[in-house]
Amino acid sequence: MTYCLAINVHQGLVFCSDSRTNAGIDNVSTYSKMHTFAWPGERFFVLLSAGNLATTQAVVKKLHSDIPKGLVPNLESVKTMQEAVDYVGIVSTWVQKQQTDRDTSNTNFEASFIFGGQIAGAPPELFMIYPQGNYIHESRAHPFLQIGEIKYGKPILDRVVKQELDLDRAARLALVSMNSTVRSNVTVGPPVELLIYERDSLGTGRRLYLPEDDPFARELSDKWNAGLMQALESLPRFAWETGAKEEEGRVFPFPSQT
Amino acid sequence: MTYCLAINVHQGLVFCSDSRTNAGIDNVSTYSKMHTFAWPGERFFVLLSAGNLATTQAVVKKLHSDIPKGLVPNLESVKTMQEAVDYVGIVSTWVQKQQTDRDTSNTNFEASFIFGGQIAGAPPELFMIYPQGNYIHESRAHPFLQIGEIKYGKPILDRVVKQELDLDRAARLALVSMNSTVRSNVTVGPPVELLIYERDSLGTGRRLYLPEDDPFARELSDKWNAGLMQALESLPRFAWETGAKEEEGRVFPFPSQT
Repeated sequence: MTYCLAINVHQGLVFCSDSRTNAGIDNVSTYSKMHTFAWPGERFFVLLSAGNLATTQAVVKKLHSDIPKGLVPNLESVKTMQEAVDYVGIVSTWVQKQQTDRDTSNTNFEASFIFGGQIAGAPPELFMIYPQGNYIHESRAHPFLQIGEIKYGKPILDRVVKQELDLDRAARLALVSMNSTVRSNVTVGPPVELLIYERDSLGTGRRLYLPEDDPFARELSDKWNAGLMQALESLPRFAWETGAKEEEGRVFPFPSQT
Repeated sequence: MTYCLAINVHQGLVFCSDSRTNAGIDNVSTYSKMHTFAWPGERFFVLLSAGNLATTQAVVKKLHSDIPKGLVPNLESVKTMQEAVDYVGIVSTWVQKQQTDRDTSNTNFEASFIFGGQIAGAPPELFMIYPQGNYIHESRAHPFLQIGEIKYGKPILDRVVKQELDLDRAARLALVSMNSTVRSNVTVGPPVELLIYERDSLGTGRRLYLPEDDPFARELSDKWNAGLMQALESLPRFAWETGAKEEEGRVFPFPSQT
């Protein structure tokens, strides 16, 4: 499996991806799932990928090769983020259709993507593209998107992500969400890649590559564990611990039972 | 869906369950998933249930009705926790088999359980019973068990649960794991039930019933959120934030790419 996430805060975008791929438990490998397309000063796109590796590689290859060929649309020619994500969705379903048509067994060629970035003059945006090529947009109420093994890393995002978070804090949060997933699920694994894109910079962002033994990643995980222990200490005590009178109605039996 | 968990620490056992059941999204209801069997001074068992509601209700009914009938084995007659969990596994598969034999469509009658407790003279134990009736035991390295929607609430347990945690802290942790799941998944919902069993007490434990608007549950959730924000503040800063020299090799491009 895979875990990728992206966050859209007022200051910019954060992208984070793991690098473990597996076709069966005895065919485990390492591939980057973070792909960038940059025209400094004009436009910058990031594509995070999950699903069938042949599909995602073919999609990335075609997105790149359409540009010098001048095929329209391509990532250089599109006028808006909406046109860009439409185009990526079409390429994804086209690749899957090709492979499905040739398939003689019942292979799953599906892939999903997070696509985000900025075109000069417009705000940064994030999309999550389903295997069917349709997509959803992040929103003020839900300023993050995830693909792959999304459940382990979701509670911390649900609790803490807000558009008001500054960019570096959002990036640390993305690493925590990733680290929680890596710890709890062996199909998601390092190296972890992190890309931090500052709004209106129209550059290629800051990109970190964090292998398993990276000291910064280890310190982050250790400090987070210590912070959780402190958070646990901060929780309210039960009535019997403080000697307070226990309230009626919060004790056995369950009201709907007879 | 459902989320239930149990933790075995040196001081005793913690059980926690949600109460939401649904047969389709328009058939949502509230049932307790925590069932107790008590012979004070002699033995105490807790059963947490997930899966087909008709199956779990039939299992609980049979576990109760086998006792006065004197059918052997039953929860009063079994000599060990191992015999007890074997018996529950047999009852579960027997109920599922009965329903499957009568089924004319392709209904899923499966159920899984967490079963735990203590028999006088032996230590407290926890088991997770699969729909197939076989089961696994908690262990020193993995002193908690989960059924249902387990992924959201797993990272906090993976990071913090140890057998050395005191019982009330373990109970608070169970509530945090449950609260994270309730927030992130609408198929898991309050009221939440919590049962805290002190080792060798052989009583019925302390049992809390926490409806949606419970002030203690809300305070716990608020304090946990605040604690997470503090934990986020405690994380190491990126090199560019502190002005430290950025290390080579942690920056783009991904090494395995050309």
